[in-house]
Amino acid sequence: MPQFAKPPQDKALLDEAAVFTPRFDDKGLVTAIVTDVRDNAVLMLAHMNAEALSLTLETGFAHYYSRSRDTIWKKGETSGNLQKVEQVLADCDQDAVLLKVSMTGHDAACHTGRRSCFYRQVTIADGAAMLESIDDHRAFDPKAVYGK
Amino acid sequence: MPQFAKPPQDKALLDEAAVFTPRFDDKGLVTAIVTDVRDNAVLMLAHMNAEALSLTLETGFAHYYSRSRDTIWKKGETSGNLQKVEQVLADCDQDAVLLKVSMTGHDAACHTGRRSCFYRQVTIADGAAMLESIDDHRAFDPKAVYGK
Repeated sequence: MPQFAKPPQDKALLDEAAVFTPRFDDKGLVTAIVTDVRDNAVLMLAHMNAEALSLTLETGFAHYYSRSRDTIWKKGETSGNLQKVEQVLADCDQDAVLLKVSMTGHDAACHTGRRSCFYRQVTIADGAAMLESIDDHRAFDPKAVYGK
Repeated sequence: MPQFAKPPQDKALLDEAAVFTPRFDDKGLVTAIVTDVRDNAVLMLAHMNAEALSLTLETGFAHYYSRSRDTIWKKGETSGNLQKVEQVLADCDQDAVLLKVSMTGHDAACHTGRRSCFYRQVTIADGAAMLESIDDHRAFDPKAVYGK
């Protein structure tokens, strides 16, 4: 598996570096934005520790780190909705990655059965922040897939 | 400015909620993915505290929280590259938002002068993780804009 070198002391060097030195935060994580390679739609946001990032680069399938379960997970292992990684991009200061993926299975990334986790628009009504659904299509039934 | 109610104790309620109750982390932040409303290209990743999120929703221009400078910043205040917010989406568990923006000024989001902060592809060569530029076009000269 690929190993990662330590980031340089001087953050100004990160912008043009030719070596990828991910800046893991104090919990050992970088942020991963996941988009559909077909149309750039943002599918989900997740986190990766060094092992999840290595596994993703090594296998070509997205692996994340679950903060609530404190474990590595291969996306889609339960639901069948694997994410084949077509391209990995790093940002200027190297604390975030962008995965462009093709989905297998139900062609959906969200545990609610929707294609994207970003299925609600934030609106302001009388000074309160509200949510309004912009996508009610379920590509799968979460109860049938996750069994509860 | 819009105020935010506290998230429910039961996280399962977040998925279908009609009220936006952002789940700020232990540092008081949510993650913001920023895309270009024209073609969904991911421009940058940033963080927002409650005040930055309120200011963004209230003014229609993106405000972020700088972790390194410990301050709110209005994106583009120095460079002229403001981000007019066309749509704000929340994710299923409400700890991330997606901003779809139109950029003013140089039509660029990255401090290096590039359109997007994600301008390098991660590749593996002999077990080492390398970065390869996919965008060398600078929409502005950072030295001229930021003055150093």
